[in-house]
Amino acid sequence: MDLDFLASLAVANDKKVVLVVLDGVGGLAGPNGRTSLEAAHTPNLDDLAERGICGFHDPVAPGITPGSGPAHIGLFGYDPFRYTIGRGVLDTAGTPFVFKKGDLASRLNFATLGADGTISDRRAGRIPDDEGQRLTAKLAAKIAEIEGVQILLQHVKGYRAAVIFRGRQLDARLCDSDPQRVGQKPQDVVPIEDNPTPEAFLAAKLSNTFIRQAQKTLADEPKANFVMMRGFDNYEPLPSFGDLYKWRSCAVAAYPMYKGVAKLAGMRVIEAGQSSMEAELDLVERELPNTDFIFLHIKKTDSMGEDGNYDGKVKAIEHFDRLVPRLTGLNPDVLCITGDHSTPWSLKSHSWHPVPVCIVAASARVDACRSFSEIAFLQGGLGRIHSTEVMPLLLAHAERLKKFGA
Amino acid sequence: MDLDFLASLAVANDKKVVLVVLDGVGGLAGPNGRTSLEAAHTPNLDDLAERGICGFHDPVAPGITPGSGPAHIGLFGYDPFRYTIGRGVLDTAGTPFVFKKGDLASRLNFATLGADGTISDRRAGRIPDDEGQRLTAKLAAKIAEIEGVQILLQHVKGYRAAVIFRGRQLDARLCDSDPQRVGQKPQDVVPIEDNPTPEAFLAAKLSNTFIRQAQKTLADEPKANFVMMRGFDNYEPLPSFGDLYKWRSCAVAAYPMYKGVAKLAGMRVIEAGQSSMEAELDLVERELPNTDFIFLHIKKTDSMGEDGNYDGKVKAIEHFDRLVPRLTGLNPDVLCITGDHSTPWSLKSHSWHPVPVCIVAASARVDACRSFSEIAFLQGGLGRIHSTEVMPLLLAHAERLKKFGA
Repeated sequence: MDLDFLASLAVANDKKVVLVVLDGVGGLAGPNGRTSLEAAHTPNLDDLAERGICGFHDPVAPGITPGSGPAHIGLFGYDPFRYTIGRGVLDTAGTPFVFKKGDLASRLNFATLGADGTISDRRAGRIPDDEGQRLTAKLAAKIAEIEGVQILLQHVKGYRAAVIFRGRQLDARLCDSDPQRVGQKPQDVVPIEDNPTPEAFLAAKLSNTFIRQAQKTLADEPKANFVMMRGFDNYEPLPSFGDLYKWRSCAVAAYPMYKGVAKLAGMRVIEAGQSSMEAELDLVERELPNTDFIFLHIKKTDSMGEDGNYDGKVKAIEHFDRLVPRLTGLNPDVLCITGDHSTPWSLKSHSWHPVPVCIVAASARVDACRSFSEIAFLQGGLGRIHSTEVMPLLLAHAERLKKFGA
Repeated sequence: MDLDFLASLAVANDKKVVLVVLDGVGGLAGPNGRTSLEAAHTPNLDDLAERGICGFHDPVAPGITPGSGPAHIGLFGYDPFRYTIGRGVLDTAGTPFVFKKGDLASRLNFATLGADGTISDRRAGRIPDDEGQRLTAKLAAKIAEIEGVQILLQHVKGYRAAVIFRGRQLDARLCDSDPQRVGQKPQDVVPIEDNPTPEAFLAAKLSNTFIRQAQKTLADEPKANFVMMRGFDNYEPLPSFGDLYKWRSCAVAAYPMYKGVAKLAGMRVIEAGQSSMEAELDLVERELPNTDFIFLHIKKTDSMGEDGNYDGKVKAIEHFDRLVPRLTGLNPDVLCITGDHSTPWSLKSHSWHPVPVCIVAASARVDACRSFSEIAFLQGGLGRIHSTEVMPLLLAHAERLKKFGA
């Protein structure tokens, strides 16, 4: 749906909307023939399914497996094809770093370069946060500018940092320097287009210079003696969530990437000191009175799927289920429980499978679903929608969209 | 679907199609947990559901609540985003008024202006038809032309009239003068775009002059001493229903707006003397031999929903159900029963909820639905389609679309 059209219908009111994203919640059957959602004991989620309208959303398109960026972008109502966000921008946005329009951002991984010139550890031994911070500061102290371009460094998490080039027009259509495998030499950064722009050649040159200078600066480090760049992207602000939908919004998320995508959408991001579900629920309880919309991100369902841990995913779902009464106790006018994509334990990765979605609201047309699972939701009243249709539906159920046309 | 493409496949034959629009028929559960359709005793509609193929259509898009214009435009096969029709044109089209391309039309409401300069009654005490006709004629006699622009007046119904500006290029992107609430001053008509065209400024000036002249003309009226303008729109003819679909078509509807949208689509509009369902059925029986397609509009289901009258809506549905044998007795080759949008009693307004649709034809792939209701149709063979897909399906079931490609 055209965002300008949607925005033209949006009106403010006092209704409150809570969107819970159980990351990667959709799955595939385990050894017992049931998905984690089916196998999990979820009396509270089942109650929501019974009271609400259920179905599925396709995050991007049938058969397409989304990264976390496009998956959330779509759920927030933005066309994931139009609003593409590279990892450099996405990860940086989840930090306190403040972008300027046109900044060129790249994820920076601290790595170990062996004596033979190949990468011996792509994560520099998974260095902890404080070590990552020290190394980032060390680079920042030495490299402030290259060829008149300002070099800004930002630690992200563990071995992950970001580097931002500011002050000249630069083209982000560049390959990664990360060879993706140990035992390989790091790659030179080069433009990826057939007919690269001068701005792409310049950006590539700056990147390779930066990597050489960083290598010199880190030469005395035992583990993190090298950096790799990946996910180049130019920062462009998204249309603001508040301007579009006429509400105050905030995000409760523990991981930088999800905080990042929420911040890019203009949400107020609540800094969670801890990443436990309970701590996140505390924040939802604290913030709901001060906002109209809360995006709550729960990571554990995805992590278990990524690890191929079927039982772990069941337990993560059951863990969340026990917290559902805290959400319903807040009496939001609209409560939506869904995922950003599926992460089947048997694939150990994101997948293309449609994602269960349940909307509970006084204006929901209740269907016959009685339990919260993939197989049950096939009977749901929502049918199969696109992820970008979730947000219009949440606004509609909150009576925040006026009538279109006479 | 592209209309030119659809038209390229349409062929004439002798099959007859009846499309019944039960206005606002979709709903939400009542106090008993059932929607009006579920609660209503509808043996004849249930029989149609059993013999036909069932499902839902989205009038515009998930979450979007349509006005009657876009809702019908979509059902007739036109893209409701491309073919937008303002209230000025829609209401006028339902009268005998004959538009010329480029006419600027606005709804005109007779209202009461208090001594303090605020609107004390937005409907001038709901004056009857003959009074509205007299006042419209009084204005027409005094105001024939402003700045070389012809001023045409047309009574619509009760306190509702229309004013049409003809003879110069005018831009309809103007705000309403109606403040929408009593106790407020009427607004000046001004352009709504950020960078208005000269044609918008001219149209605004003409409108404000017209309002002042109308006020003078009506100064001696006890109730209807003022007029308000709303729903400015330039008349553009729609692609003709007959040219597109290669058939003779007619509309049986009692209310101006539905006659209007049918007329804009190029249907022959049958003037119903009475608005009872029985009188409308008489006309369907009379006209079907002389046409290929009949659009029958039933208003009562929507009116009851708008009034928040759950039982009334049940009764309106049961009332229509008793008349279904008169329709099936005519043996149309294709009989489609649907709505233009949902009007849940609990929302007392149009809504975004998908609309039940049932198609009965010899070529329908019959599904397992046994009753005519929202919950039953979730098992239907049509699934969830877009409103613009209803018309191609009716043509197809009437074997009026030839094969695409070799």
